[in-house]
Amino acid sequence: MAAPGSTAAELAERLLAGDKRALARAISLVENDDPEGWALVREVFPHTGRAAVVGFTGPPGAGKSTLIGAIVGHARAREREVAVLSIDPSSPFTHGALLGDRIRLSDHFLDPGVFIRSMASRGSLGGLSEATLQAALLMDAAGKDDVLLETVGVGQAEVDIIDHADTVVLVLMPGSGDSVQALKAGVMEIPDVIVVNKADHPLTDTMVREIRGVLSLGPRTSWRVPIVRTEAARGEGVEELVGRVEEHRAHIEAEGTLEERRRRNLMNEVMELATGRMRRRLADSVREDPAVQQLLDEVVARRLDPASAAARLLERDE
Amino acid sequence: MAAPGSTAAELAERLLAGDKRALARAISLVENDDPEGWALVREVFPHTGRAAVVGFTGPPGAGKSTLIGAIVGHARAREREVAVLSIDPSSPFTHGALLGDRIRLSDHFLDPGVFIRSMASRGSLGGLSEATLQAALLMDAAGKDDVLLETVGVGQAEVDIIDHADTVVLVLMPGSGDSVQALKAGVMEIPDVIVVNKADHPLTDTMVREIRGVLSLGPRTSWRVPIVRTEAARGEGVEELVGRVEEHRAHIEAEGTLEERRRRNLMNEVMELATGRMRRRLADSVREDPAVQQLLDEVVARRLDPASAAARLLERDE
Repeated sequence: MAAPGSTAAELAERLLAGDKRALARAISLVENDDPEGWALVREVFPHTGRAAVVGFTGPPGAGKSTLIGAIVGHARAREREVAVLSIDPSSPFTHGALLGDRIRLSDHFLDPGVFIRSMASRGSLGGLSEATLQAALLMDAAGKDDVLLETVGVGQAEVDIIDHADTVVLVLMPGSGDSVQALKAGVMEIPDVIVVNKADHPLTDTMVREIRGVLSLGPRTSWRVPIVRTEAARGEGVEELVGRVEEHRAHIEAEGTLEERRRRNLMNEVMELATGRMRRRLADSVREDPAVQQLLDEVVARRLDPASAAARLLERDE
Repeated sequence: MAAPGSTAAELAERLLAGDKRALARAISLVENDDPEGWALVREVFPHTGRAAVVGFTGPPGAGKSTLIGAIVGHARAREREVAVLSIDPSSPFTHGALLGDRIRLSDHFLDPGVFIRSMASRGSLGGLSEATLQAALLMDAAGKDDVLLETVGVGQAEVDIIDHADTVVLVLMPGSGDSVQALKAGVMEIPDVIVVNKADHPLTDTMVREIRGVLSLGPRTSWRVPIVRTEAARGEGVEELVGRVEEHRAHIEAEGTLEERRRRNLMNEVMELATGRMRRRLADSVREDPAVQQLLDEVVARRLDPASAAARLLERDE
């Protein structure tokens, strides 16, 4: 995939100097599971760990992208360099709503201090969260002060993807009853900051009250999850939100849990990368080997149970 | 875990005869990843494939358990044997709402033709969806006509768990805007049947219209997803829902896709079991081996990148 004459070392050098095109190319390499991409991350990894990484999740339509656009504007006013990584589900329906959101970010497309990238959550060649962390590391190495990760959804799977962040922000809106219930039922872990966006809606107070009620039932921790009202489209509440995110970061830094979080996230990452590779190796052997296909036929015919078939697969693979 | 003198063959025999206690014990064995549990599934697997397996998912609070309770009542009136497997997230908050739901099912606790079981979605020893399928197979082997699987949530992860079902039912309620958006955005695959429960709510028509709008944008398929209104607490609409589920099953049977679905599900299961075992083996080596701990320390110190660490882990493991 590399252009003739370009080496990982050259690309790494340009990336570390903050070259936007080098960063875009590097992310494509890791997204495509290209060995040169891995070599690049290896090269720049010692230069990572400086960016503040913030993850945003929440139901589609809550206005996350508009909010992130406003946060980017706020950061730029303070001359901070920003990178945004959005993970989009590939909808079988119209892409209208999501594209509409993306367009909100386009104010920043021409700003050299802002780097914006989307990844599809299905059909990625490697595992999604592998690619996400690698991309976030590359953004960090490229000297971005803020790395903002965005996922769409209201389940633990979506939180897991942005779990590499130092701070996790859940973005809701009036009417996000399902999400509040998911939080209450434990379908989703408690985030660090909760936003109620579209706060000009008459049901905002009700929503804030519901969230407060759920949080009050939760375990007591040293960090009290703030609920911030925003109207992202008008920039309302964005300054407060940025302040809360910074407070959270200062809190976990002071407490020593930032190091702990990053240690845990890196360890999880190593495990995920290792299991992802094993899974792909296994999937290849299944695809290519007629003997394995025969094994699966036996399972479908209910002559061989799935666990025994799995055990035989593993024996073959060793 | 086996009682003295009891063997897998004896337990299998009792299970195949429909003994409720044998079934309960068998499920505990697979849930605890006990080798005897796997032996048991191996033994009874040729007797599976007869039950109609229906999966239910949807946001917490939509009334899934009440609905399932009503469906169980309906099945019992037709003298069908039923098993219910509920996957509960372990909430850090009060378990109130979920327990409340469970209690609705208690009408059937004393009926020998009904078997009800819950599993926690976190902290299960094996993988969750592994244990779920094994338990569903055991229920099938025990002669249940209907096996109903239930998960709580509004994301693809929850749909994946019940993907072993022949028919997937999404249960919403008026106000489930986040879930409709998740469907539209492709966060969640299109189910086979959609229920709007609590249909006595004044916003029911709006909700049905929204769902219809989203579905009309989707790909055309040979099966048109029906939207059924229910008031589970009063039993309203349950007969229609059961009819729709049966129609769906007849449709995929006639079309030949039931076989296809089951083949795909069994193949996925074999792959999941195999990767789950690899993952556990790897996790054990990480926990027990000081050299691996040292490797991870290098990553945390940013001297070794995660992908290289993963590659070294895999070399050690081979």
